[in-house]
Amino acid sequence: MKDLEKVHKNERRDRTIVTVGDIRVGIDCLIVAGPCAVESDKQIITIAKEVKKAGANLLRGNIYKPRTSPYSFSGVQAKGLRYLNEVKLQTGLPIVTEVLDIRDIEKVIEYCDVIQVGSRNMQNYSLLREVGKIDKPVILKRGFMATIHEWLCSAEYILLEGNKNIILCERGIRTFETYTRNTLDLSSVAALKELTHLPVISDPSHGTGKRGLILPLCLSSIMAGSDGVMMEVHTDPNMSVSDANQTISLEKFYDVADKVKKTWEFRQSISNCLI
Amino acid sequence: MKDLEKVHKNERRDRTIVTVGDIRVGIDCLIVAGPCAVESDKQIITIAKEVKKAGANLLRGNIYKPRTSPYSFSGVQAKGLRYLNEVKLQTGLPIVTEVLDIRDIEKVIEYCDVIQVGSRNMQNYSLLREVGKIDKPVILKRGFMATIHEWLCSAEYILLEGNKNIILCERGIRTFETYTRNTLDLSSVAALKELTHLPVISDPSHGTGKRGLILPLCLSSIMAGSDGVMMEVHTDPNMSVSDANQTISLEKFYDVADKVKKTWEFRQSISNCLI
Amino acid sequence: MKDLEKVHKNERRDRTIVTVGDIRVGIDCLIVAGPCAVESDKQIITIAKEVKKAGANLLRGNIYKPRTSPYSFSGVQAKGLRYLNEVKLQTGLPIVTEVLDIRDIEKVIEYCDVIQVGSRNMQNYSLLREVGKIDKPVILKRGFMATIHEWLCSAEYILLEGNKNIILCERGIRTFETYTRNTLDLSSVAALKELTHLPVISDPSHGTGKRGLILPLCLSSIMAGSDGVMMEVHTDPNMSVSDANQTISLEKFYDVADKVKKTWEFRQSISNCLI
Amino acid sequence: MKDLEKVHKNERRDRTIVTVGDIRVGIDCLIVAGPCAVESDKQIITIAKEVKKAGANLLRGNIYKPRTSPYSFSGVQAKGLRYLNEVKLQTGLPIVTEVLDIRDIEKVIEYCDVIQVGSRNMQNYSLLREVGKIDKPVILKRGFMATIHEWLCSAEYILLEGNKNIILCERGIRTFETYTRNTLDLSSVAALKELTHLPVISDPSHGTGKRGLILPLCLSSIMAGSDGVMMEVHTDPNMSVSDANQTISLEKFYDVADKVKKTWEFRQSISNCLI
Repeated sequence: MKDLEKVHKNERRDRTIVTVGDIRVGIDCLIVAGPCAVESDKQIITIAKEVKKAGANLLRGNIYKPRTSPYSFSGVQAKGLRYLNEVKLQTGLPIVTEVLDIRDIEKVIEYCDVIQVGSRNMQNYSLLREVGKIDKPVILKRGFMATIHEWLCSAEYILLEGNKNIILCERGIRTFETYTRNTLDLSSVAALKELTHLPVISDPSHGTGKRGLILPLCLSSIMAGSDGVMMEVHTDPNMSVSDANQTISLEKFYDVADKVKKTWEFRQSISNCLI
Repeated sequence: MKDLEKVHKNERRDRTIVTVGDIRVGIDCLIVAGPCAVESDKQIITIAKEVKKAGANLLRGNIYKPRTSPYSFSGVQAKGLRYLNEVKLQTGLPIVTEVLDIRDIEKVIEYCDVIQVGSRNMQNYSLLREVGKIDKPVILKRGFMATIHEWLCSAEYILLEGNKNIILCERGIRTFETYTRNTLDLSSVAALKELTHLPVISDPSHGTGKRGLILPLCLSSIMAGSDGVMMEVHTDPNMSVSDANQTISLEKFYDVADKVKKTWEFRQSISNCLI
Repeated sequence: MKDLEKVHKNERRDRTIVTVGDIRVGIDCLIVAGPCAVESDKQIITIAKEVKKAGANLLRGNIYKPRTSPYSFSGVQAKGLRYLNEVKLQTGLPIVTEVLDIRDIEKVIEYCDVIQVGSRNMQNYSLLREVGKIDKPVILKRGFMATIHEWLCSAEYILLEGNKNIILCERGIRTFETYTRNTLDLSSVAALKELTHLPVISDPSHGTGKRGLILPLCLSSIMAGSDGVMMEVHTDPNMSVSDANQTISLEKFYDVADKVKKTWEFRQSISNCLI
Repeated sequence: MKDLEKVHKNERRDRTIVTVGDIRVGIDCLIVAGPCAVESDKQIITIAKEVKKAGANLLRGNIYKPRTSPYSFSGVQAKGLRYLNEVKLQTGLPIVTEVLDIRDIEKVIEYCDVIQVGSRNMQNYSLLREVGKIDKPVILKRGFMATIHEWLCSAEYILLEGNKNIILCERGIRTFETYTRNTLDLSSVAALKELTHLPVISDPSHGTGKRGLILPLCLSSIMAGSDGVMMEVHTDPNMSVSDANQTISLEKFYDVADKVKKTWEFRQSISNCLI
C-alpha cells in the first residue's frame, strides 16, 4: 500500500535490525527498565546499576514528562541530562528518554542513545519529521487511540526523512475496560510481524497499569512475537513520583528479567518464525 | 466484594478443577478445536478424528449459531445432535456446543459434555440461571462488550444456582481497531488468575478474526496464564460455512497443538505461578 | 442490502406508524416516563397519574429487571402485573415493560401495551423471534455495544416473523468516556431517518446516567429527528431502588415534557424533513 | 478540583465571553464555515464571500493539514497566509486556521483572528503553552480519544499561561461504530455547561463524517446547549481535496445557517438556561 511504502514488509527487504549498545534489536532480546521519571542523580544512578546487573540492556528514565494536568510533576527537565550523563559514565548502559518538544531534540541526543516518541505524540507530525532527521534509534509508542495502520503511517513519516532505526512499542489502547489502565493489544505485536520489517516491543507497565500483571504480560508478549519488553522499575515503587501502581521493585525485576530471557530462548527453540 | 462472593479467589478456597473427559481443566492443558459450525455428519466426524489425533481434547462444533443477520446460516439445529452422538461413538472425544435458547438445554446435555454460553448471551440471565441448574461443565465466553467485573458477575449467577463447573473464555472485546475483528485481551487472562478460583481459557480465532494470528496468540495466551486454548479448525478452511477467515487447516492445527503443549510444559518448568 | 430487506427505507415504502394508545408514533411525539422499576402498587399508581397529567403518553415501569449482579434487586416479578393492571384501570395510560425471558411474554402481553427488548437482549435471537410473533408494539433498545447495522438486523428478525410495530430506541453506547454512564449517540437517530422506515426514540436517562443532562439531551434528541423520548421519573428520585442518578423528579418532568412538546412543534414549523 | 482550578465554573465567576469579529461567543451564535483546506486564493475568496452572505460569522480554512499519511496533501503551507489576508481585505470576515507547529504561531497570528488546536494536538503540551501566551482566541478541539476531564485539563494549560479566550469544540470521539466517522458526543456539550465557564461549540462535519447528517446534528447541538457550530462548506463538495464526504454545498449551507439561527432563537425563547 502506498501509505506504507517504506514501512511494509516484502520479499526483497530484510527485517530491520536496530543497534542499541551491544544489542541488535530484531535478533537479541531488548529489555528496557528504569523509573517512569528521573527524580535525582542518586535515584537514577542506583536504579541503573541494579537493572543492569539484573539483565536490562537499555535504561529508561524520562526527564520531560507529558502530564494530563498542568499541576502534575512534569519532570526534572534539562538538568536531568547531567544525571543521565553521569549514569552513562558509571554504568555504560544506553539510555532512552522521551522528547516532547522539537526544541529539545538537539541537546537530548548529545546525552541519550535512543529517543522516545510517546503515545500522545504519535501523530505530532512536526516531531516525527524532526526525529526522522537524526541518526539515533527512535522508540515510537503506539498512540492509545491509534489503529495499527495509523501507527505504521507515523513510522513512515520518520522513515521518509531518512531515519531507519525505528522500534515500535505497543503500550495498550483505550477501551471501555476499567480494571486495567489500558488494554494491551498483543495481537498488534503478532500482526506487525506480518506487516512490517521493523522490530516491535511491548510495554506491560503502561499497557496494564497494574504491577501484578507485568510478569505474565511480559512473557505473553515474547510469545506473541515481541522483540523485547519495557517496564517501569524503582528501588521503592510506592515512592515513585509517578505511575507507582505500574512499577515493580528491583527484586521483582530480577525475576522478570530472568523469565523473559528463558522465554526468549524457549521461543527460539520451537520456531524460527511464529507467523 | 459481595457481588462476587462465590466467584472470587481467597485463601480458604482451592482453585476449581473442571473435569472434561480425561482432562482436569486447571491442571492439564485444555485444547478445544473443531469447526465453527457443524455442517454435516461426514464433516464433523472427519474433523473430530483428525483434531483428536493432533492433540485436541475437546471438540467444538455449534449446531445452533447466533447470527447478526436472520438470513445467515443459523446451524443445522437439533438434527446436529445425532451427528454429535455419532462423533462420540466413533471417537470418544468430549464435545462442547453452544446453547442459545433455554428450551434446548435439556436435549443438548443428553449428547454433549460441555455447554457453551456465547458472547452475545453473557448477560442473558434466564439462560445463566438454567445452565446453573445442570451438572455439566459450562464454558462462559466473555461478552464482547463486557468488563471483567460484569463477566465474573455472570459466573456468579451460575455458581449461585449450584453449578461449579465453569470455565471462563476470553474471546476478544470490541474496540476502535479494525485490523483485527476484536481485540483479544490477554491482560484479562492474567487478571482472572488473581481474581477468581475458576479456570480460564482463550479463543484467538474469535479474538483476532485472522488465521495468521492464531498460532502466536495461542502461545501468548498460555504464557499469560491461560488454562487452555480454543480455536476453529476445518478440513478446508476456505469452504467453512462461517468464520472462514479465522479458521485454520488441520495441517496447521498439528503445528499449533504441538507448540501449545510445548509452551505449556515450558511454563510449568519456570513457574508454579505467574501471579 | 439483503440483510436489511424489510427494515430499510425505500421509495415504494411508507414510513411505519406505530399506534400506542392515542398516539401515532412517527406522526405524534411519544413521551415515555415512569420509574426504572415498579416497586409497589402505590408507587406506580401515584407516578402514573402524575406523569399522565404532565404530558406522558406511555408509562414505563419494569417488573423484571436485568441486573449485572445476581444480588441486586431484580424486580417485583409477576406480581407486578397486577399493579400494572390497576394502573390501567385508574389512568388509562398505556404501559411498556421489559421482557427478559420468552416464558414471560404470554402473560405480560395480557396486561401491557408495549413490550420492551432491552439493551442486553438486543441480540437474544430467541426472544426477538418470539416478540416477532405477537401483534403488540415492541420497543427495541440498541445494544450498548451494537453498531447501527447490527441493531437494524435485530429489527429485521422481528419483522421477518410478522410484527411490524417496532420502535427503535437509542440509549447510549459504551465508550472510554467515564463522566457519562454511556455516550448517547444522536447521530444514530439522524442516520436511522435515512436508513429505515421505522420510528426511533431516544432515552437520555440511560444514555447519560446523569439527571442534570436529561433536559438538554431530550431537546437535542428531538432536533436530531427523534420521534419521541423516554426518561426515568420518580416521586422521590433519590429513593428510587435503581438508577437513582438518572431519574428526575415529577416537578422536573413537568418542565421537560413542556419543553419537549414546544421543541417538537418548533421542529415541525421549520422542516417537513431534516434529512 | 485542583486540576481544573481556572477552568471550572463557580458562583463567583462569570461565564467567559470570547469576542470574534462582531460576535460575542457565549452570547451570540457562532457559525463557522469554510473548506477543510485552503486550496487556492480563488477558491477561498469565493467561498468566503458566499458563506458570509449566508450567515457565517467566522471563516475556517486550514493551510497546514495534519494527515495520517505523509503522502496525503498537507496544505498549501505558509503561502496560504497571503490568500487568507486577501480574504480579509475583500470580505472583512474573521478567520480561523489550525496551527500544528509552534514555529508557525507567530506568523499565523499576524493574519488570522482565531487559532485552532486540532484533535491530534489536544495533548501537545508545548503547543498548548505557546497558544496560552498569545492574546488571540483559541478553538481547542476535543481529542478523538480524550475524556471530558482531559480536555478541560488541556484548556487549563492554556488558561495558566494567561490566555482566557478559549472556545471548546466537540468534534466526535472514536468508538466501535463504523457507520459514522466518529461519534459526536452531544452529552459532552451539555455537561460542559455545568462544568466550565468557557463557551463550547460543535463540529458535525468531523463528528459524523457524513454530509447528510450535518443539518440535524447542527440543530441538535444547539439544543444541547452549544454556543455555535462549525462545518465544512465548499463550492463543489465532491471536488474538495480532503474530507469531501463531510462537506456540504453552498446551497445546502444557506439552509443550514438559516435553521441554526432559528433554532438559536427558539432556544432563547424557551429557556435562559438548559442546565
